[in-house]
Amino acid sequence: MSEAPLPQNSPRYINLPRFADERGNLSFIQYPGDSPFDIKRVFYLYGMPEGSTRGAHAHKTLEEVIVVLHGSCIVKTYDGHQWQSFSLDRPDRGLYIPPLYWGELTEFAPDTVVMVLCSDLFIAEDYLSPLQEYLDYMATLQPGKSK
Amino acid sequence: MSEAPLPQNSPRYINLPRFADERGNLSFIQYPGDSPFDIKRVFYLYGMPEGSTRGAHAHKTLEEVIVVLHGSCIVKTYDGHQWQSFSLDRPDRGLYIPPLYWGELTEFAPDTVVMVLCSDLFIAEDYLSPLQEYLDYMATLQPGKSK
Repeated sequence: MSEAPLPQNSPRYINLPRFADERGNLSFIQYPGDSPFDIKRVFYLYGMPEGSTRGAHAHKTLEEVIVVLHGSCIVKTYDGHQWQSFSLDRPDRGLYIPPLYWGELTEFAPDTVVMVLCSDLFIAEDYLSPLQEYLDYMATLQPGKSK
Repeated sequence: MSEAPLPQNSPRYINLPRFADERGNLSFIQYPGDSPFDIKRVFYLYGMPEGSTRGAHAHKTLEEVIVVLHGSCIVKTYDGHQWQSFSLDRPDRGLYIPPLYWGELTEFAPDTVVMVLCSDLFIAEDYLSPLQEYLDYMATLQPGKSK
């Protein structure tokens, strides 16, 4: 029996509209529209000191779209098998993170502001962290693999 | 018959949570919760040159919460009778703007980023602008006052 992960969505960039004129720029995301889900919660990160890491967890069911509104950062994702790295440095590009992907935000430029749209309210039981808890949970989802 | 405006919500600050630790700050807004409405759309403004003005319209039905995530600005509101001025300069304080209030964003500090949560999708017919169109529309809502 294969140990490949269950079929699932993958993290992916979402290009967002940008309306630019002499007054500056406007971008938006809405559902239905570029957001893959109904937006229940918006959180945002700011004042991250150099060298800090945010995230470092996965979600059982929550979907997220991450948009860097000022500055830049790197988002590293992990599905239990493979790491991927995404660069976010413009407000008209978001990153969709599906459930069951570990995610870490690192390498914040000074004064970076990160907005995260969420498909649900804060539910503590939905979080998987630290990494071993995530890997243990993923192992229970492998078809044909006993715990 | 009084010419007082119809009873309605007023613009008001909304204090939002802020979780601060050695990794930086996290604030959030969700519905049900601090958001007075289900969040259908999020837009954000960035790259405003010095001296620019954004907004300068009212909505027939749309509700908004404005949060300045970086920098600062002044939001001026008008109900057809009285102007009010609100200062937004911290990510853990939002400003709720009910329907039927004219709103203008001005005095942007350099590199200001403004996030606006909306109770509905973009609907062109919901906008009232320029100011005279807003005032004409408001006049039609005055009790006991013929057009």
